[in-house]
Amino acid sequence: MTGIEKFQKERAELAELMTEKADMSMKRFLNLDSKVYEDGAIPAKQKEMLGLVASLVLRCDDCINYHLVQCHKARVTEAEIVEAMDIGLVVGGSITIPHIRRALKSWGELEEGK
Amino acid sequence: MTGIEKFQKERAELAELMTEKADMSMKRFLNLDSKVYEDGAIPAKQKEMLGLVASLVLRCDDCINYHLVQCHKARVTEAEIVEAMDIGLVVGGSITIPHIRRALKSWGELEEGK
Amino acid sequence: MTGIEKFQKERAELAELMTEKADMSMKRFLNLDSKVYEDGAIPAKQKEMLGLVASLVLRCDDCINYHLVQCHKARVTEAEIVEAMDIGLVVGGSITIPHIRRALKSWGELEEGK
Amino acid sequence: MTGIEKFQKERAELAELMTEKADMSMKRFLNLDSKVYEDGAIPAKQKEMLGLVASLVLRCDDCINYHLVQCHKARVTEAEIVEAMDIGLVVGGSITIPHIRRALKSWGELEEGK
Amino acid sequence: MTGIEKFQKERAELAELMTEKADMSMKRFLNLDSKVYEDGAIPAKQKEMLGLVASLVLRCDDCINYHLVQCHKARVTEAEIVEAMDIGLVVGGSITIPHIRRALKSWGELEEGK
Amino acid sequence: MTGIEKFQKERAELAELMTEKADMSMKRFLNLDSKVYEDGAIPAKQKEMLGLVASLVLRCDDCINYHLVQCHKARVTEAEIVEAMDIGLVVGGSITIPHIRRALKSWGELEEGK
Repeated sequence: MTGIEKFQKERAELAELMTEKADMSMKRFLNLDSKVYEDGAIPAKQKEMLGLVASLVLRCDDCINYHLVQCHKARVTEAEIVEAMDIGLVVGGSITIPHIRRALKSWGELEEGK
Repeated sequence: MTGIEKFQKERAELAELMTEKADMSMKRFLNLDSKVYEDGAIPAKQKEMLGLVASLVLRCDDCINYHLVQCHKARVTEAEIVEAMDIGLVVGGSITIPHIRRALKSWGELEEGK
Repeated sequence: MTGIEKFQKERAELAELMTEKADMSMKRFLNLDSKVYEDGAIPAKQKEMLGLVASLVLRCDDCINYHLVQCHKARVTEAEIVEAMDIGLVVGGSITIPHIRRALKSWGELEEGK
Repeated sequence: MTGIEKFQKERAELAELMTEKADMSMKRFLNLDSKVYEDGAIPAKQKEMLGLVASLVLRCDDCINYHLVQCHKARVTEAEIVEAMDIGLVVGGSITIPHIRRALKSWGELEEGK
Repeated sequence: MTGIEKFQKERAELAELMTEKADMSMKRFLNLDSKVYEDGAIPAKQKEMLGLVASLVLRCDDCINYHLVQCHKARVTEAEIVEAMDIGLVVGGSITIPHIRRALKSWGELEEGK
Repeated sequence: MTGIEKFQKERAELAELMTEKADMSMKRFLNLDSKVYEDGAIPAKQKEMLGLVASLVLRCDDCINYHLVQCHKARVTEAEIVEAMDIGLVVGGSITIPHIRRALKSWGELEEGK
């Protein structure tokens, strides 16, 4: 199993646990968290890239991996991923580099797994 | 060994190493870090929940696990834990979700281990 | 007009603008943001203190002021405010000190304005 | 003078001071900071929105205002701005709300100033 | 009055208020906060630069101004300040730029006020 | 293999992947990221300590480990490391403690591996 596949499996298990334990407020948040990435004035593909860069500057590997998977499904190209990461890197600084390294590995696995 | 037990074992080992290497300033900080959670105008139980939410919005898994253990000892209920996490989730955003997922798993282990 | 009164006036004006411009998702978030502080397994008063400490460690003066007003309405005492801030200070570090200084000034104004 | 005009004036003055005091490394960073927002695999307009959301979740008013000006020049619509902010709000949490309020005011000023 | 003088005056007033309201834990923190910048294995001058860069990457203008004043007293040169800021800028990213701009203005005022 | 050796091996592999995938902007950033730690008005040894404290308050284990290795090569003493960490701890708060614990373990491994 690749790293990104392992991430997806573990995420699915823990997401199920969260849904089970969640009260109404938590459920509403989770719904809203899906809602804001849907097609609208901004197309879904671009929204995933917004989510990716936000996750990168806040340095959350799980969130980065999630949005990489979504970007991959939305047919974002590697050149677009790298340019989005450039912005995250310049805005967020060298502290984002370890996350970019791991993200590029995940991206490679997604591309190979096509 | 459950995840939370593994966390407690590793934390104990590293905490011992830190005490060994710490100078006077570091020791004073560690003392103060115990002091502020003691019973006072705010009861210790509520203080642990303050520590939990602070740790959640700052997204530190080790700190979250530590305060979950303390909350469990102080007989915080699951409904209280979930409502405290709701506040952390709303204040801190979806970037806290991976931490909430892992925290709910730790909490489940603490409840089962009673 | 005291500093905290000025804050409340400006906040009200900008909050109105936000409601006016907000789409459905933004409105849902704002509703949820009220919801999570309501009485539940954790009483509303304690939830405001959770919101206060979360705001302090994330270093948001506007959020701190908002929760100070709510804490004041909920009859939180100054001793409780100071102990909550102690936790924020220890968890979040000296970087929170300028926010604590301003918060204590706001709190004094709220107490005098009773 | 509107708030956003005042921001632009002060920013220009301080940016000049920074250029004057900057050494080679600082200059290189500033060049790179322009470079990453240029048209490429991702169009400049979308890159400004990436910069906007990154600035929002990191909660930097000056950076938000700067990217709002750039978005306005690139003919981003208000509906797009609001949806981009929805993502920032959900990812970054209620702690971003004071910044969104101020950003919507700046945006209104930019729209009126057309 | 220059910007940095205004900062120092307001800081002194609010610091007095904090000391007045502080309980034992808060006082201990404030003592420790002085202690760690004293001469030791690392000279006080270098410690102020550590405090400056930490404040810059955490983006706290008040903390930056405080350490700039201390650095100025310790005869840190402008070239050293700029190189320290280069590190903060690269580590923390473009989000630190507005703080660097304001810091360079404060530094200029300190140099002129000699 | 010790923890710090494992870190160095994995870092080298991922850094190679990053260089391979990087576009011109990313490469420029990486160059600049080396440049700012070179000897200048501030000696390289002190710059590594600035990088260490910046990494600690931003709570990035990989960045901390990297600068610990560099500090070790530059013959920083353990007393200096501990005092630098004291500053990071006081500025950044108890949320940095898990990182300090792990850093002290890494440092011990570097010292033993001499």
